[in-house]
Amino acid sequence: MELADIKYLFEPRAVAVIGASQEKNKVGCKLMENLMALDFKGKIYPVNTKGGEIYGMKVHTDINDIGGPVDMAVIVIPAKFVYSAVESCGRKGVKFLVIITSGFSEVGNLAEERKIVEYAHAHGMRVLGPNIFGIYSGKVGLNATFGPRDINRGNVAIITQSGALGIAMIGKTATENIGLSAIVSVGNKADIEEAELLEYLIDDEETKIILLYIEGVHSGERMVEFLKKATQKKPVIVIKSGRSKRGAMAAASHTGALAGADEIFDSIMKQCGVLRAESLQEAFNWCKFLASSPLPTGRSTVIITNGGGVGVMATDACEKYKVELLDDPVATKEIFGSVTPDFGSTKNPIDITGQALAKHYDGGLCAALKDTRINAVIALYCQTADFDKATYTDMIVKNVQKYREGGKPIVFSLVGGEEVEECIRELRRQGAPVFGDVYEAVQCFGILFRHLEHLSRAAEEAEEPDMDLECMQNILSEVRAEGRTFLLSHEAQSLMKAAGIPVPESKIATNIREAVEFSEQIGYPVVMKIASKDIIHKSDAGGVALDLLNKEEVMDAYQAIIRNARKYKPDAVIKGVEIVRMIQKGTETIIGARRDRAFGPVIMFGLGGIYVEVLKDVAFRALPLDRREIISMLKDIRSYSLLLGVRGETQRDIESIVDTIIKLGKVIRKCEDISDVEINPLTVYEQGHGAMAVDVRILLTDKNRGEKK
Amino acid sequence: MELADIKYLFEPRAVAVIGASQEKNKVGCKLMENLMALDFKGKIYPVNTKGGEIYGMKVHTDINDIGGPVDMAVIVIPAKFVYSAVESCGRKGVKFLVIITSGFSEVGNLAEERKIVEYAHAHGMRVLGPNIFGIYSGKVGLNATFGPRDINRGNVAIITQSGALGIAMIGKTATENIGLSAIVSVGNKADIEEAELLEYLIDDEETKIILLYIEGVHSGERMVEFLKKATQKKPVIVIKSGRSKRGAMAAASHTGALAGADEIFDSIMKQCGVLRAESLQEAFNWCKFLASSPLPTGRSTVIITNGGGVGVMATDACEKYKVELLDDPVATKEIFGSVTPDFGSTKNPIDITGQALAKHYDGGLCAALKDTRINAVIALYCQTADFDKATYTDMIVKNVQKYREGGKPIVFSLVGGEEVEECIRELRRQGAPVFGDVYEAVQCFGILFRHLEHLSRAAEEAEEPDMDLECMQNILSEVRAEGRTFLLSHEAQSLMKAAGIPVPESKIATNIREAVEFSEQIGYPVVMKIASKDIIHKSDAGGVALDLLNKEEVMDAYQAIIRNARKYKPDAVIKGVEIVRMIQKGTETIIGARRDRAFGPVIMFGLGGIYVEVLKDVAFRALPLDRREIISMLKDIRSYSLLLGVRGETQRDIESIVDTIIKLGKVIRKCEDISDVEINPLTVYEQGHGAMAVDVRILLTDKNRGEKK
Repeated sequence: MELADIKYLFEPRAVAVIGASQEKNKVGCKLMENLMALDFKGKIYPVNTKGGEIYGMKVHTDINDIGGPVDMAVIVIPAKFVYSAVESCGRKGVKFLVIITSGFSEVGNLAEERKIVEYAHAHGMRVLGPNIFGIYSGKVGLNATFGPRDINRGNVAIITQSGALGIAMIGKTATENIGLSAIVSVGNKADIEEAELLEYLIDDEETKIILLYIEGVHSGERMVEFLKKATQKKPVIVIKSGRSKRGAMAAASHTGALAGADEIFDSIMKQCGVLRAESLQEAFNWCKFLASSPLPTGRSTVIITNGGGVGVMATDACEKYKVELLDDPVATKEIFGSVTPDFGSTKNPIDITGQALAKHYDGGLCAALKDTRINAVIALYCQTADFDKATYTDMIVKNVQKYREGGKPIVFSLVGGEEVEECIRELRRQGAPVFGDVYEAVQCFGILFRHLEHLSRAAEEAEEPDMDLECMQNILSEVRAEGRTFLLSHEAQSLMKAAGIPVPESKIATNIREAVEFSEQIGYPVVMKIASKDIIHKSDAGGVALDLLNKEEVMDAYQAIIRNARKYKPDAVIKGVEIVRMIQKGTETIIGARRDRAFGPVIMFGLGGIYVEVLKDVAFRALPLDRREIISMLKDIRSYSLLLGVRGETQRDIESIVDTIIKLGKVIRKCEDISDVEINPLTVYEQGHGAMAVDVRILLTDKNRGEKK
Repeated sequence: MELADIKYLFEPRAVAVIGASQEKNKVGCKLMENLMALDFKGKIYPVNTKGGEIYGMKVHTDINDIGGPVDMAVIVIPAKFVYSAVESCGRKGVKFLVIITSGFSEVGNLAEERKIVEYAHAHGMRVLGPNIFGIYSGKVGLNATFGPRDINRGNVAIITQSGALGIAMIGKTATENIGLSAIVSVGNKADIEEAELLEYLIDDEETKIILLYIEGVHSGERMVEFLKKATQKKPVIVIKSGRSKRGAMAAASHTGALAGADEIFDSIMKQCGVLRAESLQEAFNWCKFLASSPLPTGRSTVIITNGGGVGVMATDACEKYKVELLDDPVATKEIFGSVTPDFGSTKNPIDITGQALAKHYDGGLCAALKDTRINAVIALYCQTADFDKATYTDMIVKNVQKYREGGKPIVFSLVGGEEVEECIRELRRQGAPVFGDVYEAVQCFGILFRHLEHLSRAAEEAEEPDMDLECMQNILSEVRAEGRTFLLSHEAQSLMKAAGIPVPESKIATNIREAVEFSEQIGYPVVMKIASKDIIHKSDAGGVALDLLNKEEVMDAYQAIIRNARKYKPDAVIKGVEIVRMIQKGTETIIGARRDRAFGPVIMFGLGGIYVEVLKDVAFRALPLDRREIISMLKDIRSYSLLLGVRGETQRDIESIVDTIIKLGKVIRKCEDISDVEINPLTVYEQGHGAMAVDVRILLTDKNRGEKK
């Protein structure tokens, strides 16, 4: 059955409250009052088995008694009655179930939750929750929550996994004068997750900024897909708690969602162009600033200050948050010469000195606004004896207005005592981007520029390299047929070959004659390895011989390997001995691809050996990836410069790393049987000389264990 | 002449104001008014060539007309008159000159500044400034500044290099309800620097916390000495701006002080146990918290929360700021079982649920206070429908009081709307450690524990290894005699030997016979290198031969090296050919010691090759160092685990690295001629097998260039 259009979650035409009540302290009462408080454009139907009348409205004892259609049913009755209410809703043809009630998967009652969702889907209904505080949607005046009654309407949409924090956030948005277009509590995410909500919010014109509070990710692949789309249209800010190992444990016990490893989450958010905030305060600062600031046309920023000290601090903060300062003393002298006293400085940061009054700031800001070499302005003020609240407030309000009209971002930081603090509070209430702390102010600019940079990087189409998928599938089927969940070395190599990834030439010899024959075909020196599915640790078994230079050495090695293997594991089935060409030295790298429980297929890259093992110097991305994204991933590792050539070496063949990643990405996406592939090492040669997948490990999903594909 | 005791800068018995005035807008007027506003315990003498009477006091036309003694002269007259005023002060026997006036080294007028200090020192006077806003000292009620009149007396002492920021900070301390014991503006630091001020503040009982705002460091060695002493007695917080390259430039143009490389500064602050804050807001949060919080007896912390979401965020923050959470579910169940509802959680973070009221917090906090397994508590509150400002304010104030009496630190974070914000403001005014942001709250705990950890590490006496200083000095004198500023390889090796640092055995052969003789004494394989002060790049000159296995190879190599050298540089004076034993392979490390312009002798450690060159993986410390500090320095590098042995290797001889660092430290401290020593590589062998300084470069200070020793 076709599921309901997400539009009606945000714009329901009629809402029934199952468990509506007039008794104070009941959630059903708070909900009714909130629903009626705003100018909701649809119909409201209280439902309660007790019947009667509340708030002057007839109470229906069953939702099916309601005459007209109902888009949304808000359910606030105890958990044990919810399923039966859902059945009634199904019969009624409700589109969305907003299940406020708790007592489901978060306390271990997963079965009931699944049963509800299954029933709902079978009847075309979608489920928000359970274990939530509800949904607010500004456009239609819907406050179907048991949170605060008064919510400022505005441009920020919030999706939150934590109910308590969500309610506190509503309060905080009001204090910070942040208007909301929507706030949705997703709770246990039994059905509706962030991805669906994003789908609606991306095209919602009222929503300028999307803020997500996430504790755990379920369907990461879809989330990534919609986050990528969303960030092309509007800034998306994420707070993900459970970063730390302990935090992840606490998050798991809290909502029953397993938090993914934080490095992976963090990399993928960057990849999606999402702005990740650490704390609520950060997130709110960014929301507020981004919702009102124009997008600049360039990154050239000037600092105007009345004190050298704060100027230096702001310069430090600009470096930290990657805000580019205009570094052209001739230009800044030209622009600010007439508004800066002799003992000031026209070098960026522009120091208009401690004697500057509001009118002098006005002069400097006006000059900066007019000049096209300047794209953005940070204005700093240290309290002086001449501070006058009214004049400064007025000057700042006017300039914020002029800058908005002129399409240039501006941010202020004022440092001082109580009067200055009052001035800041007053200005923030009026929506001006003013901060007490220089770093907070500059951070907002950093975030704005990060978003701008993301917008400038148009997504490329991910490449789909040709590969022999049928051959690959045949190899995997054979492994499955043998009941194994890992590939033997030669199988893995064949699969790589089919995927177009270069591997060292190799053959399996089943007797001495073949060993010599194959060695001569491949060319000396060669390496020989035991080929047996029963011997995983070949070296331990004495099943490996390196650097064999001629026929005699190959013959000796063959006999020794077979003898060692028989001794190591007498009952091992030995397929033969694998002959491989010795690999030339190059730069060793590791590429891993796996199915992450939260995000689906992800890829990892790092330099081989101690770089990965000791320094943990790796980068992650979610698949699919285009070339630009892969290059940015390579650059993420600290040891990247080793690929550019150090100590007299020439540059390594970076393009062939990119090719390998694209191919490996397709392998894991197309072969659903594979859970993990690791090329270790991928030996990379000089530019133009390619790379070689020297060793490859492939693991299959363990179907019996029910591991997520 | 003996200089004045620093005590009289903070506790002057009589102050003269040279340039006193009654004309508003004049600094001399503001200063007089500030001086008179507090209950200053000493005498105040206005001085002005105009004479007359101001504020009911006789104005002396010359300081020498004053009858009684004068400890401090505050000078606010134009720069060109200052020197003559200083002469008058010298005649009068003034102890401290507080030169407010600007227009000296900060605008390039270094000569006048130096002249003033020289004169002052010759007459036993010390100089604060110039280019400052003055000094406030709570103990004697001295406000000799032109900043705000009202300064809260309290326990925080501030030393600031930026005047404008300093004045703004006074305002901010009042808003944040932070009391000051002293604030000193040091400006150009022509004479008095942070070290002298620390010397006084360390023993000042009123001062509980010291906050420094630094832009550039002059006499770093003394500063380090006093910072180390200070942090053993009280927390010291530093804000250092000019971290970034650009910021450092801005700082340099601002106060004329060259900011040292930020990595060095940062490492040395850590070494001294100083708490480095990034922004003013951070520094003020820490000051306020540390000034009022008891020192805990252990690190075991619990989080008490009414919402899972903030609990998880706080757990993340604890990991970030290294706050140890009590991880003992049995204990926490025992402690909190009776105060936690069934659907809450007694696992840390303790979730007393969204239904918790103030009295339930009271119960939890009381249980935590009583139990000795808990050393510190973080209490979190998400606003719920039942929030009542008065009750919560009361509960928090009472608990803060009880925790202070009980010697356990506590911190609160409240998240919510306007009422909650008001509650926070009210509580902060009352001095309670309450924050709106969870991360800010937890960071304060992190800082407290860092200070605690520093206190627990008693400083060891730095070792003074025996070395043949006379021999070392002779080598250096010979090099000086030849007019060189670098040591030849064999000279450097001899110096290392004299210092007790193992070097490969080496001899200089002046003919083929000696070459063979020495090679056989040293033992094959050997390496040969040209020995000539005129040939620095030996390899380029064809002056190096490696891995020579026998007499014949040595003879051939000798001839080839001499031939190549003559061809490379026909006029080179050739001392002979150096014969060195080939070095066994080991782990290559780099140890560098140099005289830093700001901090004097500093030492650097890193792993050789790409670790230093590409990954910039190095650690710095100021000398002298004890063993414990050296170990902590080694652990600072990311690649430290390589020294513990990876991939089947055994642990390297870490003790011999420590020994080498101690010895090299003594070398640079004792040999003032040396500007730089670098051992690269120091090859380190398995534990018990020592290390070898394979190559050593030593540079001397360039006396002609007037480089600072």
